Amino acid sequence: MTGGLAIVGLGPGDVALVTPQVTAALALASDIVGYGPYVDRIPARPGLTLHPSDNRVELERAQHALEMAADGRRVVVVSSGDPGVFAMAAAVFEALESGPQHWRTLQIDVLPGITAMLAAAARVGAPLGHDFCAINLSDNLKPWALIEKRLRLAAEADFAMAFYNPRSKARPDGFARVLEVLNDACQDARPVIFARAVSTPEEAIRVVPLPEAKPEMADMRTMVLVGTSATRLIARDGVPFVYTPRSVLE
Amino acid sequence: MTGGLAIVGLGPGDVALVTPQVTAALALASDIVGYGPYVDRIPARPGLTLHPSDNRVELERAQHALEMAADGRRVVVVSSGDPGVFAMAAAVFEALESGPQHWRTLQIDVLPGITAMLAAAARVGAPLGHDFCAINLSDNLKPWALIEKRLRLAAEADFAMAFYNPRSKARPDGFARVLEVLNDACQDARPVIFARAVSTPEEAIRVVPLPEAKPEMADMRTMVLVGTSATRLIARDGVPFVYTPRSVLE
Repeated sequence: MTGGLAIVGLGPGDVALVTPQVTAALALASDIVGYGPYVDRIPARPGLTLHPSDNRVELERAQHALEMAADGRRVVVVSSGDPGVFAMAAAVFEALESGPQHWRTLQIDVLPGITAMLAAAARVGAPLGHDFCAINLSDNLKPWALIEKRLRLAAEADFAMAFYNPRSKARPDGFARVLEVLNDACQDARPVIFARAVSTPEEAIRVVPLPEAKPEMADMRTMVLVGTSATRLIARDGVPFVYTPRSVLE
Repeated sequence: MTGGLAIVGLGPGDVALVTPQVTAALALASDIVGYGPYVDRIPARPGLTLHPSDNRVELERAQHALEMAADGRRVVVVSSGDPGVFAMAAAVFEALESGPQHWRTLQIDVLPGITAMLAAAARVGAPLGHDFCAINLSDNLKPWALIEKRLRLAAEADFAMAFYNPRSKARPDGFARVLEVLNDACQDARPVIFARAVSTPEEAIRVVPLPEAKPEMADMRTMVLVGTSATRLIARDGVPFVYTPRSVLE
C-alpha cells in the first residue's frame, strides 16, 4: 500500500452529512489521527489504528500524521465540519512547510465537509444568503484587538457573520465583549442565532434580537450567526425562519 | 404522501460530494425544481417530474415550488453547492414571506451542501484557514459601489476572500475593476486562486500573485479565492499548495 495523507471533514455530527468521498477515504485508511471526540466518531475495524489526541496539539498531531504517511501508512486526519475552516488542514500545511523536503512529494488530499456555519444556517433558513464573513473568536492564536477590529469592519461592511469557538471555560469573558462591540457597531435589533450541536441529539437552536443576546447563550459547541441590517424573520410555530434577502437596493 | 419542500445543495459537481441526506431527499421527491444545468444532474425515474427553468427567475421558481408543495407534492429545489450561499434558499424564503399565510405551515427543510469556496480551497490546501469572507461579485442585485466598499473593508480586516460569480458575458468589466481595487487596497503579491469547475472533468486550477491576476482568468464557472497578507505557498510539482496560517502574532 502506498502511503498518503487525506485531511477530511466529518461534518457537524450526523453521518447523513458525511460525503461519500470522505466515507471512502475512511474505509481505505490504516490510521486515523485527530482530536479525541472526532476520532471517536470513526467505527473501529480490523487493520485500523486510531490515534486520538488532546485539544491544542494541532501541530504535533499534524507532524505525526505526516511521519506516518512518509512511512507508507494510509493516514486520514479527521476534523469536525470542513478541514479547511478553523480546523486541521492549515496545521498540516504549517507542519509540511517546516518539515523535511521529502514530505512535499507525499500524496496529500483535502476532502471538504459541511462546515458548522452552513449546517447552522440551514436549520433556520438562509441567514447567510447575502455576503458574509467567518471569524474564529478564540484569541489563542491571534491578538484580541484584531478580533474587535474585524468585528467593527464586518459590521461596517454589513456582512452577515458566522462565529466559530465563541466561548470556552478558558475564555469566559471574550464573548461578552464581542456582544458589546456588535451592539455598539450595529445599533439595531438584527437577529442573532445560537445553534448548539447542530445535527446531533443535543441540538438546540435559539434566535434572539442582538440587544437581547447574552454571553451564556453560547458555549464551545455553539455556532453563532449574526444577520445583516436587512436580515428578516418569518414567524411560525417554534423557531422562526431567518433569512437575508439577496438584494440590496440602490 | 404529505407535501413538503426541501431546498438542497448538490455540491460542486462530483456525486461523491453529495451528502447522503440530500441523496435521500432526492429519492423521495415527486418534483425537482431548479436552474436547468442543476436539474440536469438529477437522474430521471418513474414518478419524478423535472422542472428546469432559466437563470434569473429565482423568485418565480421559488413560488412555483411552494405552490406545488402546498398542493401535496414532495418538492425538492436544487442548487449547486450549498443552497444557503448565493443560491435558492434565500429566494424561497423571500417568496414564502410575501406569499399566502398557509405556506408558513408547510414542512420546509434546507439541506446543506459543499459550497464552491470550500471545494476550491480544498483543492489547493487551506487558503481559508484563517478568518475569511464570501462576496458575490454580481451586481445584478446590489449596487456596484457596495461591492467596492466591501472589498476595501475586507482588505483592511485582512480577511481571506472568496468570490462567487466573478464574471459573466453580461458583466465583462466588473472583475477587472475588482482586481484594481484589490491591488490598490492590498499593495502586495498575495496568492490569488482561480478554481474553475472544481470536481468536474473540466476542473482547472491556477495560482498567481495578485499583481499578475487578469480578468480573463475567471468566468462564471470560476471560484476566485484571495489570500490574506500572511497566506503562504509551498512549491511542489504542479500547482503549489496554498495555506493561510492559523496564527497572527501580536
